[in-house]
Amino acid sequence: MEQVSANKAFGGVQGVYRHASAETATDMSFSVYVPPHEEGAKLPVVWYLSGLTCTHANVTEKGEFRKACAELGLIFVAPDTSPRGEGVPDDPAGAYDFGLGAGFYVNATQAPFDRNYRMWSYVTEELPALITEHFPANMSRQSIMGHSMGGHGALTIGLRHPDRFKAVSAFAPIVAPGQVAWGEKALGGYLGDDRAAWRKHDAVALIEDGARVPELLVDQGAADQFLEQQLRPELLQAACDAAGIGLTLNMREGYDHSYYFISSFMTDHLRWHAARLGAE
Amino acid sequence: MEQVSANKAFGGVQGVYRHASAETATDMSFSVYVPPHEEGAKLPVVWYLSGLTCTHANVTEKGEFRKACAELGLIFVAPDTSPRGEGVPDDPAGAYDFGLGAGFYVNATQAPFDRNYRMWSYVTEELPALITEHFPANMSRQSIMGHSMGGHGALTIGLRHPDRFKAVSAFAPIVAPGQVAWGEKALGGYLGDDRAAWRKHDAVALIEDGARVPELLVDQGAADQFLEQQLRPELLQAACDAAGIGLTLNMREGYDHSYYFISSFMTDHLRWHAARLGAE
Repeated sequence: MEQVSANKAFGGVQGVYRHASAETATDMSFSVYVPPHEEGAKLPVVWYLSGLTCTHANVTEKGEFRKACAELGLIFVAPDTSPRGEGVPDDPAGAYDFGLGAGFYVNATQAPFDRNYRMWSYVTEELPALITEHFPANMSRQSIMGHSMGGHGALTIGLRHPDRFKAVSAFAPIVAPGQVAWGEKALGGYLGDDRAAWRKHDAVALIEDGARVPELLVDQGAADQFLEQQLRPELLQAACDAAGIGLTLNMREGYDHSYYFISSFMTDHLRWHAARLGAE
Repeated sequence: MEQVSANKAFGGVQGVYRHASAETATDMSFSVYVPPHEEGAKLPVVWYLSGLTCTHANVTEKGEFRKACAELGLIFVAPDTSPRGEGVPDDPAGAYDFGLGAGFYVNATQAPFDRNYRMWSYVTEELPALITEHFPANMSRQSIMGHSMGGHGALTIGLRHPDRFKAVSAFAPIVAPGQVAWGEKALGGYLGDDRAAWRKHDAVALIEDGARVPELLVDQGAADQFLEQQLRPELLQAACDAAGIGLTLNMREGYDHSYYFISSFMTDHLRWHAARLGAE
């Protein structure tokens, strides 16, 4: 693992790192904020999964998470959203919603994507091992959040690892990719036409099929341009209601899909996570 | 004036605007954050001047000022750092420290820069008139801050307008451009070889020549790569000591010149400004 940069911020260190990933067969970059802490301490870890077109850099620059992480003693990990580099296949038309920047947190089964697009295993296995090895992380105290496509990633990964993550939240998540255009394109392209295979990568379907967590927190901008066609939080609300999952769904009047929205509520989410991580 | 974008953030609106500037004879862009406020209220205004290579966008995306501005009720205005566009002369070698992105907040007297590079008048006259006209601003309650070259701008503009600005602060400012390479190149290029003309654009020289404000706040990273050659806060300390100006100079161990440094101390500066603007 190579350190690309390290900048002191809010008393801790914001780092960017690169490593050769066995899962994606590419170099992968990610960022980690380590808050100020006592020598030898092991700190809880918050995972943040980013949305379409993003790298680690968007939330690292615009997420406004460091102040709260410093106060609450949280490590903040932000992976990339897809493999990248020469030879990595992209959307045939170069569209933003498939291929580079759009890995959708699945292990692709369809050629030519199956060789590199293994973001599920990368985020749930390979990168956690790297974090455990190189950072002062207490891996028995983890939580996960994400935005849009990364909200989809956080919800599906959280629902399938209820013992690993003490808290799961999302900003403007894609809650039911099997029922919206972004998701149908991505899951079809990476996993093939058999929709049964999609259900493990669809938060609403996972809940319908029996996945359970005690509670979820979702913030959603009411002026989000993708709200009605791609995000559809009402589907998550219905699934949670039927399953007895305590969903807090905050509809935020006037807010859009951008980091101006995310940063406005980031501290709320981090405090909610910290309370469940026992970090406060 | 045209609105380029508007995003709700922390209950207020982060806008970006463009207008045809008479001073620079170009289109100019700037950003304004207006915090949540009561209908009809007039709010104090904090000016933020950016550093070399920046536009309004750097601080707007990375400055982490909106939460504090929302809590304190402050309008935050971020101008660009130079004229831009076709026909605007640049550094002959395309260097980052002169020409585009490097206006140094002066009115150039030297051809070919004198036509467009009128950032002093733009920031002190034309843009304030626009802010007065289009935003809920109480122009009797203004303060100014900046970073690096913009710290130079904030200090010189603040020292020359002690009645206009209730507070003046800076992050890692160029305090004595007449004594450092960045400043010698810029002031020589824009104002010519007569160093007497530079003294009105040099904070240390202005104080030596009698300019007075009651107090100044400066935060400076101790690990800033430009500290010893370009910034030299000890020169400002000596000038303030001799003049009886109360300088609070916070040397910040381990911090560099980046927005990771600025964002870490932005809230401190805004609270300091708010206390002097009567906004708390």
